Amino acid sequence: MEQVIQALSTKLSSDQISSNDTVKELHSKDETYHQTSMPDVVVFPKSTEEVSFIIEVAQKFQTPVTPFGVGTSLEGHVIPYQKGITIDFSLMNQILEIKESDLLVKVQPGVTREQLNKELKKYGLFFTVDPGANATLGGMAATNASGTTTVKYGVMRDQVRDMEVVLADGSVIHTGNLAAKSSSGYHLNGLFIGSEGTLGCFTELTLQVYGIPEHIVAARATFPSLTNAIEAVTSILHAGIPIARVEFVDEASVTQINKFSETDYPTKPTLFLEFHGNASGLQEDLAFSQEIMQDHGCDNFSSETDTAARNHLWDARHNLAYAYIHGHVGKKMMLTDVAVPISELANSVIYAGEELEKLQIPGGILGHVGDGNFHSLIMIDMENEEEVKKAKQFNEKVVRYALERGGTCTGEHGVGIGKKPYQRLEHGAALDVMINIKKALDPNNILNPSKIVDVDNRVNL
Amino acid sequence: MEQVIQALSTKLSSDQISSNDTVKELHSKDETYHQTSMPDVVVFPKSTEEVSFIIEVAQKFQTPVTPFGVGTSLEGHVIPYQKGITIDFSLMNQILEIKESDLLVKVQPGVTREQLNKELKKYGLFFTVDPGANATLGGMAATNASGTTTVKYGVMRDQVRDMEVVLADGSVIHTGNLAAKSSSGYHLNGLFIGSEGTLGCFTELTLQVYGIPEHIVAARATFPSLTNAIEAVTSILHAGIPIARVEFVDEASVTQINKFSETDYPTKPTLFLEFHGNASGLQEDLAFSQEIMQDHGCDNFSSETDTAARNHLWDARHNLAYAYIHGHVGKKMMLTDVAVPISELANSVIYAGEELEKLQIPGGILGHVGDGNFHSLIMIDMENEEEVKKAKQFNEKVVRYALERGGTCTGEHGVGIGKKPYQRLEHGAALDVMINIKKALDPNNILNPSKIVDVDNRVNL
Repeated sequence: MEQVIQALSTKLSSDQISSNDTVKELHSKDETYHQTSMPDVVVFPKSTEEVSFIIEVAQKFQTPVTPFGVGTSLEGHVIPYQKGITIDFSLMNQILEIKESDLLVKVQPGVTREQLNKELKKYGLFFTVDPGANATLGGMAATNASGTTTVKYGVMRDQVRDMEVVLADGSVIHTGNLAAKSSSGYHLNGLFIGSEGTLGCFTELTLQVYGIPEHIVAARATFPSLTNAIEAVTSILHAGIPIARVEFVDEASVTQINKFSETDYPTKPTLFLEFHGNASGLQEDLAFSQEIMQDHGCDNFSSETDTAARNHLWDARHNLAYAYIHGHVGKKMMLTDVAVPISELANSVIYAGEELEKLQIPGGILGHVGDGNFHSLIMIDMENEEEVKKAKQFNEKVVRYALERGGTCTGEHGVGIGKKPYQRLEHGAALDVMINIKKALDPNNILNPSKIVDVDNRVNL
Repeated sequence: MEQVIQALSTKLSSDQISSNDTVKELHSKDETYHQTSMPDVVVFPKSTEEVSFIIEVAQKFQTPVTPFGVGTSLEGHVIPYQKGITIDFSLMNQILEIKESDLLVKVQPGVTREQLNKELKKYGLFFTVDPGANATLGGMAATNASGTTTVKYGVMRDQVRDMEVVLADGSVIHTGNLAAKSSSGYHLNGLFIGSEGTLGCFTELTLQVYGIPEHIVAARATFPSLTNAIEAVTSILHAGIPIARVEFVDEASVTQINKFSETDYPTKPTLFLEFHGNASGLQEDLAFSQEIMQDHGCDNFSSETDTAARNHLWDARHNLAYAYIHGHVGKKMMLTDVAVPISELANSVIYAGEELEKLQIPGGILGHVGDGNFHSLIMIDMENEEEVKKAKQFNEKVVRYALERGGTCTGEHGVGIGKKPYQRLEHGAALDVMINIKKALDPNNILNPSKIVDVDNRVNL
């Protein structure tokens, strides 16, 4: 490793290279229960050229390279299990260009979602993807993140027009262009988004943005049972109402919200909703949705048009994961992340709820139910081997249930290390295609090795 | 080739294999000016197993394989320049399953767009992608087709949840799952869609569908100049109006429409528009759009809510390419297909219009301007070498103009053979990544060789 650091020092300044234990410890973990592992060295590039140089050095010394944003990852993507170099993108955090007339923005990968939205607000614009955490846009592209607004605006992959990517040999490519659509060549945008640093490192992203809707209404609706709430969502989707957000939160999670955010929401299965549109269209959507929800037993409904009240409602929802963490000091968070076809959603959530109940571990169910995606969040005592084992078995049960019904093991968090054991089960022979692509683009397996696919093991489950 | 046919005969019946000249001639061309070339043999598989068998035979004898839908291709994708086996998917034309409750449909690749919509109508559903031609869904996926409704509903790649694909070694994979979103593994759906038969043959597609909107209004607006019309579109997009269709047609094209469809539309730069939504929201969108268009000089506006009148309007628009073909017997069609960022659209169309004027070849400009995508359609006398040369130079000028402004050489028709000369210019070093992927997945280059990329030539422009 001394040789590697020496090589890095030929172009990077001393404050861009750190072997300090505190710095390495900060880059050894994500926000969840996954085993930590420290890199040998952390580097802080300031430009594409420096990223390219770092990867050339890594290639020369056959050293693993792991990209790192702000560490809000949930499946161990940023943890360098094979040690080596961690590239921290925090110094590449410039918003490079806001092309208002094209509804496009060009950013460096270390720009965070909130940083971007703060700047865009000055132009009456916003970036749609909202995973809750204040993640970097590079990290969000790496995992194909999504979140509360995906039901209307789509996932990260739908927003990226172009990326600058440094490949395993240090060469630099662009994966797309600035037009709204293209049929030119293979879809590299799509391939690199969601590749979790295993095919290249992103150094620039061009993203599409939207005008802030003129009219927004947020709402909260409670139901006598989880089934009622989910079936109401299914009916809203079938009615073709262009809902902008529809989030489910179970009773246990409402309790956490009330404690953490000092709200007094009724402790019942709850939907948080939002509608965007023109004034009259939005009122019609809202009224129709309310009618549908009443048909499904909705017993309490309140809506907010005022910006502050809306923000308060969504902050409460977004802080839910942190509410659980703060409410269970010393424990670690595990999240399931399946997505299923709409028709399977109600039964999948019921199944997960029943299995969670049996566990007797603190947790709850929440999710972006408009996309058929939900999370079981559980807080584990990592010292308790039995509990860890039970939690992992629960995760696997929920995944197998979803896969058997045509779903996916991860709707939005990505594979990392946590969902890797289910890749063969989910993809079958297609996993070999992924392995072949990985081998073709990173023949020495230096880019975030051991994430998504194991190149040396064709049958990994 | 006799050995190949003999091998094919071991599993396919004699009426599934044809070396008949008429059949081969039908599979030697697309709808445009591209040079024709006959395959050695045409096969008509009825199942995934048979497709897999055919590709195994092709692999064994190192024979090229070219997939064929109904031949509505516009860039020579289906023309077997290296001869070999053409796989005609017309016998794989079953709608396998309509999952109403999931808004999903599973089809074989030979099902056409109109066939699917006719069936879906019984359920109050529709498939959104509408390229005009009654193409097969397999072909539409192969080229990442799009069209008039893309501005609201997206391109083919946005609709496909899963595909069954036969790879170069005859093995069968699934590229996705049935959930609305996924972050599991590399995005194979995205990679195979738009791969034009060069990475595998599609044998099954699962597509998302939508409820037919309750309220639809179509409209036609004329403008004093092309610039006014395009600037009106730009303003509608900036206003965030969720327009469902917005098509530009120039004066020359209106003349063709009037002749072919027996309409009497004013011969002026025209927008064809459509709005989908709830009753009151739609009225507000329509009124706001009309106001914007008036600000840009709109001098004639008429709208249609009646289904028959709407269909008549869109049939007239859709038949435009055929109107040109019928109006110029003996000539061949060439289409440019660039897409540019919105801010560059008006100037790009003006540039194309001026260059087209200089050509003195019959043609016009039309396009899906809401996506920044437009076509210059010209009818060429292929016997006139000078005219062919001028037409090709024109195509190249329009492409270069778009690429210099961050656009793409093909918004929706695909690369095939026609846009291949511009791949290096558009993608730069990223083309080498595409070549590496092609080599990894089709090492012997038997799958639609010479389309999109030339694997043996790393610098192809």
